[in-house]
Amino acid sequence: MDQPRALLFDVFGTVVDWRTSVAREVAPFLAEHAPGTDPADFAHAWRRRYQPAMEAVRSGARPFTRLDILHRENLEAVLRDHGIDPAALAEPVLDHLNKAWHRLDPWPDSVEGLRRLKTRFIIAPLSNGNIALMLNVAKRAGLPWDAILGAEVARAYKPSPAAYLNTAEILGLAPAECMLVAAHNNDLAAARRVGFRTAFVPRPREYGPHQDKDFGPDQDWDFVAADFPALADALGCGPA
Amino acid sequence: MDQPRALLFDVFGTVVDWRTSVAREVAPFLAEHAPGTDPADFAHAWRRRYQPAMEAVRSGARPFTRLDILHRENLEAVLRDHGIDPAALAEPVLDHLNKAWHRLDPWPDSVEGLRRLKTRFIIAPLSNGNIALMLNVAKRAGLPWDAILGAEVARAYKPSPAAYLNTAEILGLAPAECMLVAAHNNDLAAARRVGFRTAFVPRPREYGPHQDKDFGPDQDWDFVAADFPALADALGCGPA
Repeated sequence: MDQPRALLFDVFGTVVDWRTSVAREVAPFLAEHAPGTDPADFAHAWRRRYQPAMEAVRSGARPFTRLDILHRENLEAVLRDHGIDPAALAEPVLDHLNKAWHRLDPWPDSVEGLRRLKTRFIIAPLSNGNIALMLNVAKRAGLPWDAILGAEVARAYKPSPAAYLNTAEILGLAPAECMLVAAHNNDLAAARRVGFRTAFVPRPREYGPHQDKDFGPDQDWDFVAADFPALADALGCGPA
Repeated sequence: MDQPRALLFDVFGTVVDWRTSVAREVAPFLAEHAPGTDPADFAHAWRRRYQPAMEAVRSGARPFTRLDILHRENLEAVLRDHGIDPAALAEPVLDHLNKAWHRLDPWPDSVEGLRRLKTRFIIAPLSNGNIALMLNVAKRAGLPWDAILGAEVARAYKPSPAAYLNTAEILGLAPAECMLVAAHNNDLAAARRVGFRTAFVPRPREYGPHQDKDFGPDQDWDFVAADFPALADALGCGPA
């Protein structure tokens, strides 16, 4: 059977549940500094600034800047939007808040599925998250990556073609030997345009009440699986 | 106890036995194309070109070039030295020979020691080997790295200070939170100069009959251990 050699994973939303994790991490701070603010709404407001911040890099207006720094800038903006002056907070408080993104929980099926997929394929994140963020999430959650790849290694943010193509080149593989696994149709579309194979795993609760897309596949992706163990089944992986 | 957060490992010689592995991998080719050539001597001749090739990058004479490419250039030179014209060989033959460095065996204690060390520390290679090489070695040998770091990620070859400092910065750690584990005193000396902690693990058989140094520690390294399990003991790691 003609199979890929490496499975590259989107992470935020696909492997981990960033929304409820960030909400949990910021809740104690908000209870003290902005009582009445819904932590999930705060997480969502923080995340809304994610694509515009990366767009400055993708457009060439700004040199490559790792996500921890973009997250920190976005955090300070969201705090101001909530009437909190970040300059009045101690640096360790801001840093701990920002590192909420290093303490994300996996979806319940992620670890088991990755363990099984690892038996037959190279598995690595191809996330816009930086190396330290991805490593700290993986170490805490037990994600068994073979390597930490992604935007910081490729020096390009998805969905720029270079994010995918540089990753394949670094692995010494042709694009067709790589498969992106993602819960987001736009990510898969960008990967397919440069020759990657594609696997869609829906995560319909990623955005909670704000979810308005990615409930199902928009294209005939190479694989569509309900969760990671189902993808492992479809790819012929036995138990870990 | 004041301990490091991350253990970064030299790999060629420290984690894996490159000499007997490369000799094994090139032996069938040599038996056909250069009968009478000792495979271990061929491996040693190939390795002798390693430092000069990287020096062109370290000196700035050449932009950063990953080790797979340097290895290939060096292979072609060593073949010519043995009376073999690389241009007369098929590309898959040359590529398979070059990838001998992707099929290196660990020392007998490496995997067990790394598994134990991983329970308390971030563990990653800080090798001059490129990402694909390190990943393929790890996948084949079962080295349980948390991430693949090193020269290609840091864009600098050891012992340049940037190789160590960029690695710490990528991890979001101070140099003093990082410890290099190596069988080579010169690597540890360079790491110590930029603030890394240091652990020496002797590998007195690395160079076989050609070994003329690194039988013991040249300085008062923070740790000196006979092998990786002994280092795990010294760092308070229980079973994996």
